Amino acid sequence: MIAAKGYAASQAKIPLEPFKFERREVGPHDVQIDILYCGVCHSDIHQVRDEWGGSIFPMVPGHEIVGKITKVGRQVTKFKVGETAGIGCFVDSCRVCPSCKAGLEQYCDVGMIGTYNGRDKEGHPTYGGYSNQIVVDENYTLHVSDKLPLSGVAPLLCAGITTYSPLREWKVGKGHKIAVVGLGGLGHMGVKLAASMGAEVTVLSTSESKRKDAEQLGAHHFVVTSNPEQVNEVMGTFDFILNTISAQHEYNFYLQMLKLDGTMILVGVPPEAPQVAAFNLIMKRRRLAGSLIGGIKETQEMLDYCAEHGITSDVEVINIDYINEAYERMLKGDVRYRFVIDMASL
Amino acid sequence: MIAAKGYAASQAKIPLEPFKFERREVGPHDVQIDILYCGVCHSDIHQVRDEWGGSIFPMVPGHEIVGKITKVGRQVTKFKVGETAGIGCFVDSCRVCPSCKAGLEQYCDVGMIGTYNGRDKEGHPTYGGYSNQIVVDENYTLHVSDKLPLSGVAPLLCAGITTYSPLREWKVGKGHKIAVVGLGGLGHMGVKLAASMGAEVTVLSTSESKRKDAEQLGAHHFVVTSNPEQVNEVMGTFDFILNTISAQHEYNFYLQMLKLDGTMILVGVPPEAPQVAAFNLIMKRRRLAGSLIGGIKETQEMLDYCAEHGITSDVEVINIDYINEAYERMLKGDVRYRFVIDMASL
Repeated sequence: MIAAKGYAASQAKIPLEPFKFERREVGPHDVQIDILYCGVCHSDIHQVRDEWGGSIFPMVPGHEIVGKITKVGRQVTKFKVGETAGIGCFVDSCRVCPSCKAGLEQYCDVGMIGTYNGRDKEGHPTYGGYSNQIVVDENYTLHVSDKLPLSGVAPLLCAGITTYSPLREWKVGKGHKIAVVGLGGLGHMGVKLAASMGAEVTVLSTSESKRKDAEQLGAHHFVVTSNPEQVNEVMGTFDFILNTISAQHEYNFYLQMLKLDGTMILVGVPPEAPQVAAFNLIMKRRRLAGSLIGGIKETQEMLDYCAEHGITSDVEVINIDYINEAYERMLKGDVRYRFVIDMASL
Repeated sequence: MIAAKGYAASQAKIPLEPFKFERREVGPHDVQIDILYCGVCHSDIHQVRDEWGGSIFPMVPGHEIVGKITKVGRQVTKFKVGETAGIGCFVDSCRVCPSCKAGLEQYCDVGMIGTYNGRDKEGHPTYGGYSNQIVVDENYTLHVSDKLPLSGVAPLLCAGITTYSPLREWKVGKGHKIAVVGLGGLGHMGVKLAASMGAEVTVLSTSESKRKDAEQLGAHHFVVTSNPEQVNEVMGTFDFILNTISAQHEYNFYLQMLKLDGTMILVGVPPEAPQVAAFNLIMKRRRLAGSLIGGIKETQEMLDYCAEHGITSDVEVINIDYINEAYERMLKGDVRYRFVIDMASL
């Protein structure tokens, strides 16, 4: 076994603390990665606090991982020692179901194995990226270009692919009007990516204070949702709404902003299920849909696309001993737009 | 003006009674139709009882109309006296918005003009098909084949097109598994049409008593939704669910029966907006959508399709003086599957 260290929650709802644990030996198909940066996702907080139920403790969170390969198994063909690599939200899946065979491992019939808070095929708990190293099968490891600052690349592994995948699935591009709701870790990537694909992007925000940021991220329009005049102007106008909000909110309010055949895509999960008035879907043949991260193939495509287009996440790099404070700030929406842990601080 | 008679509600929530009124003179683009049959749609009850608000009284309901053309305006080119014709849910629209130009008049930006309980472009109330005759612009009139029994054709003008249109929009056919929820006026047409298009059809019903009917209508499978074993077997298996229920019910229960990328299409409007758990859409990239009747072009296509495939609605033909009793029976679900008024009884 390989000695590893990181930060863990030993039980629900208490601060994370330094933690020593073991990684598996590098198997024939595995790569070992020295972690350089790990993004801090809102779902880390949900799981550390056991808000979704079934959390496994101690828990080392983190699924936006970028680092350098330090060792490869003897049958590894895709990676070499010294290369930069990334790990996203999952580290394995059944590999044989129709979803896995289609490169949609995130929808694996058996269930993908989470990078942390999961159990591997031997039943051992998985530990995430708030740590100095990780061992992962090469088939669940991504190639990362060194063109871009790696701290800004780390959040692409979750926030990036979560927004990129639905934009591709629904073929968003030139000629489309898309609104992004919720300008946080996911939303700011949605704006950058949708704009880069040629769509006309509107940010819908409760707060005027985000107007300047929205424009700098590439949004063409900004609507304060508490302003009825501004809201009226966009009613029935969007081809797509990318809804990144995880807080409680009304779906019906936004559905009415879709034009005929428009689609609102959910990538956030509010604590309670919002209501959907059938009339709002029926009267304009509108659609409400969901999307979950992305498969390995598409995540690689997204990383390559971002490298080509110079797209990274806007990040605030922190030391790992700041993580509990970072969580508190995230709960207040006080981060622009992603905390990323510099693992040199561990 | 043309003297007409029918049955009307003089105000909300009271029985319909015989009613004399006037139709407009036949204009250059109008056809006059002697009504033979008019189907009784559940939305007739909603509007007669003012359950959607804004009802216009006196109200002559009815938007599933079949009859014979008795007169045509001097510029009419599409119809001749003596031909069989149909009128559906609307008799006009703005004709210039993108939806109207695309043949999707039901989604007219200005709002389609309902066959009844609407106001025409001069502001006069529109009166529906529970009457002896009607005058309508030829562009909003449908050709009806005489091949099929006309009493069974009448409900195609609403129940038929409401289920046909989404089946075509989502390209339902061979290789697809579709479930139909709610075996009523809409649902029984959904089963017939989906089966005729080659899809594998399952009826989901609260009641075992509909099994035999479902099979006779063309369903391949029948699931009693109160039976957990039967429900478990269909979880995650459907490409589509055609949800025709207008009573209060749970969307989440049915959403979980969709496979990856599956769509539940709503054509019924429950009184209160049901909840939608984002997880149910996100975890399998599922979609929830709505669909509203169909445009004139597609309604004609549907009528031609039904004539070609020998598809009609299963009806119970009634005299018009039975209408109030028919409403009571509809509210109890006691009709297989559509009441149709024989207008000779007027």
